[in-house]
Amino acid sequence: MAAAPFHPSRDDLSMAAAGSGAPERASVAGSYDLDSAVFRAHEGGKLAVHATQELRDRADLSLLYTPGVADVSMAIAENPSLASRFTSKRNTVAVVSDGSAVLGLGNIGPLGAMPVMEGKAVLFKHFAGVDAVPVCMETGSVDEIVDAVARIAPTYGGINLEDISAPRCFEIEARLKEMLDIPVFHDDQHGTAIVVLAALINACRVQNRELPDLRVVVSGAGAAGVAVTRLLQRAGLTDVVVCDSRGVISLERTDLTDHKPRIAATTNPRGVSGSIGDALVGADLFVGVSGGSIDEADLARMAPEAMIFALANPTPEVHPDLAHRYAAIVATGRSDFPNQINNVLAFPGVFRGALDSGARQITEAMKLAAAEAIARMVPVPTAEEIVPSVFTPGVAEAVADAVRGAADA
Amino acid sequence: MAAAPFHPSRDDLSMAAAGSGAPERASVAGSYDLDSAVFRAHEGGKLAVHATQELRDRADLSLLYTPGVADVSMAIAENPSLASRFTSKRNTVAVVSDGSAVLGLGNIGPLGAMPVMEGKAVLFKHFAGVDAVPVCMETGSVDEIVDAVARIAPTYGGINLEDISAPRCFEIEARLKEMLDIPVFHDDQHGTAIVVLAALINACRVQNRELPDLRVVVSGAGAAGVAVTRLLQRAGLTDVVVCDSRGVISLERTDLTDHKPRIAATTNPRGVSGSIGDALVGADLFVGVSGGSIDEADLARMAPEAMIFALANPTPEVHPDLAHRYAAIVATGRSDFPNQINNVLAFPGVFRGALDSGARQITEAMKLAAAEAIARMVPVPTAEEIVPSVFTPGVAEAVADAVRGAADA
Repeated sequence: MAAAPFHPSRDDLSMAAAGSGAPERASVAGSYDLDSAVFRAHEGGKLAVHATQELRDRADLSLLYTPGVADVSMAIAENPSLASRFTSKRNTVAVVSDGSAVLGLGNIGPLGAMPVMEGKAVLFKHFAGVDAVPVCMETGSVDEIVDAVARIAPTYGGINLEDISAPRCFEIEARLKEMLDIPVFHDDQHGTAIVVLAALINACRVQNRELPDLRVVVSGAGAAGVAVTRLLQRAGLTDVVVCDSRGVISLERTDLTDHKPRIAATTNPRGVSGSIGDALVGADLFVGVSGGSIDEADLARMAPEAMIFALANPTPEVHPDLAHRYAAIVATGRSDFPNQINNVLAFPGVFRGALDSGARQITEAMKLAAAEAIARMVPVPTAEEIVPSVFTPGVAEAVADAVRGAADA
Repeated sequence: MAAAPFHPSRDDLSMAAAGSGAPERASVAGSYDLDSAVFRAHEGGKLAVHATQELRDRADLSLLYTPGVADVSMAIAENPSLASRFTSKRNTVAVVSDGSAVLGLGNIGPLGAMPVMEGKAVLFKHFAGVDAVPVCMETGSVDEIVDAVARIAPTYGGINLEDISAPRCFEIEARLKEMLDIPVFHDDQHGTAIVVLAALINACRVQNRELPDLRVVVSGAGAAGVAVTRLLQRAGLTDVVVCDSRGVISLERTDLTDHKPRIAATTNPRGVSGSIGDALVGADLFVGVSGGSIDEADLARMAPEAMIFALANPTPEVHPDLAHRYAAIVATGRSDFPNQINNVLAFPGVFRGALDSGARQITEAMKLAAAEAIARMVPVPTAEEIVPSVFTPGVAEAVADAVRGAADA
């Protein structure tokens, strides 16, 4: 059976571009109204810095700069842990991207990535009081990105990797986690996974089902697809089938590259093969993180009371109106439909908790705790409300509490 | 004749440590009162970020982040020059250090450097509205530092290099200037040189002398010494003798390493040799940027109406009380004596002007213009006032104007 008709997606673009070493730049062309509201909101940039202390006179100057600062520098040189108390490292997160997989736009480079990373920094501050700064890098090989991030890491209390193409993102994150003594978190992976799990916890509550009983199909084997799969497994789900643009990732496939053989080896316990339509037969949950589209006939083969999380933005893999014909619970990545699965629910609180606890890593336990905390922010979940709104007060605080708790455990 | 008795100085420490590749870490030990005023002023760090736009609701979110941001990203990917209008790159300067030559403290590493770089960022904002962010790096070879800075450079509108040991700093700056399309400015070199020249312009005005007529001795062949020498030469001075801890740098010396043969070849036109005392015979100006100390007997050999700029901090090469016995005009780097030669007079305005003009480099013409602008901020110079105070209103604006003018010229 032929694979479902996929449009070129973020993951596909990233994959194609990644190969060995640095990915190639996407070609873009369009015309933009530089006087429109969105450009006006970006005029001059969205981020600025300020001093936390007043500088009024020579006395202030001698405290904040020379000669006073020398004592603080020497004390830190002698006892580096003091940097977490007496410098901005304490509360600063670098939002690092090489612009190789920005939103659904592909490899648009570090300058194109800047507005997204600044926006992310705005959200970090707004929701969790974290001082985040963009660090947009010329793209390069895994080695080159790892070297650059590791070299500047002393400045920061944490590293949020963002919009780095798969499969490079996996090795970059893994190596940095190994090397650094501060949390490293690829939000496209783990932020997405945490919020998907939160939504699923509440969806199961609505349907009075248990997570481990679900059959799941994940469409997309890029950063988000891999991380969603792993976190769902960690939460107890065993029947997960992952599909890429060529269909089910199974041990039968001879065209699997990079990280995909490992996916084949650790998922798909029933040995499904064929197209995504084959995988969807009897499935309870579809998670789309690919940007492709799904045939209606395939959706019709899902189990009764199915759930569809179609997260591609701005065009979900399945339009919610269509999804509702075949599913009892529908979620998207969009704010104009119910059940928006948005990373903003996770990353600010995750880093707030990690920074506060002085954790050296974001562990699996912290991610699970964060997902549970997000789920609990909806006191009585319904099919139309399985996740809190981004603007529900207290989400980031609850996530931070949960992460701190998991750090202490 | 034996060389003057030099205490170990910043330049000497840096030199010794530099060799090939990464310098060794200085060992520090001391006891610090973490409840003192200076530590209290550093509690939690001195720098934070904020959004320049309000985030109130979903509409704001969709402008500042997805989906709206995608248009801005695409427009920039298509036309990278738009990044200077629609991102924080426009006004952001990275204050980059590897902590290898921090203040007079030597190689105390990136964490020890953080309070200094944050302080610098506070001054950038206060005096010139520049959003500066610390980037403190693990130290390494010239190649490693250059690679890291070049990779993250797209994020910033300019690079302020700071407290990087000589002679590495020279090659690091030269290579980054060659590679990058944004201004790169090693403040220990050029900021110092600009303010020294400003002070000298006014000192000559006080004494009704011409710059090219002066005989100058520069003590210190590190970052500041080299840059002061070059800028004074650019301003028309020809009789400059540079000394390191072994005495006059002359073509006779067989122990000259790194950049010192070039100093020997381009200075010292009268072929002076021996100690700094020999160099000071008949000198009109002593510029100390070494941290050593000078024998009183040597000062006594300077010309009548001499000038002494003893800039080591906190301990000048010559105490001002002693200097006044042999010099008509005395300047130091300290705020508790008249004529404080402080880089803060230069770097905020230099970058303000460079960012505003979109200049790709800080040129020699800009540095000369900046020095003249600083000098002009003292309407009627006297022996006790050859430079404006750091808090004189309008200095950074005047420097920025001058730099913009030189950029347009």
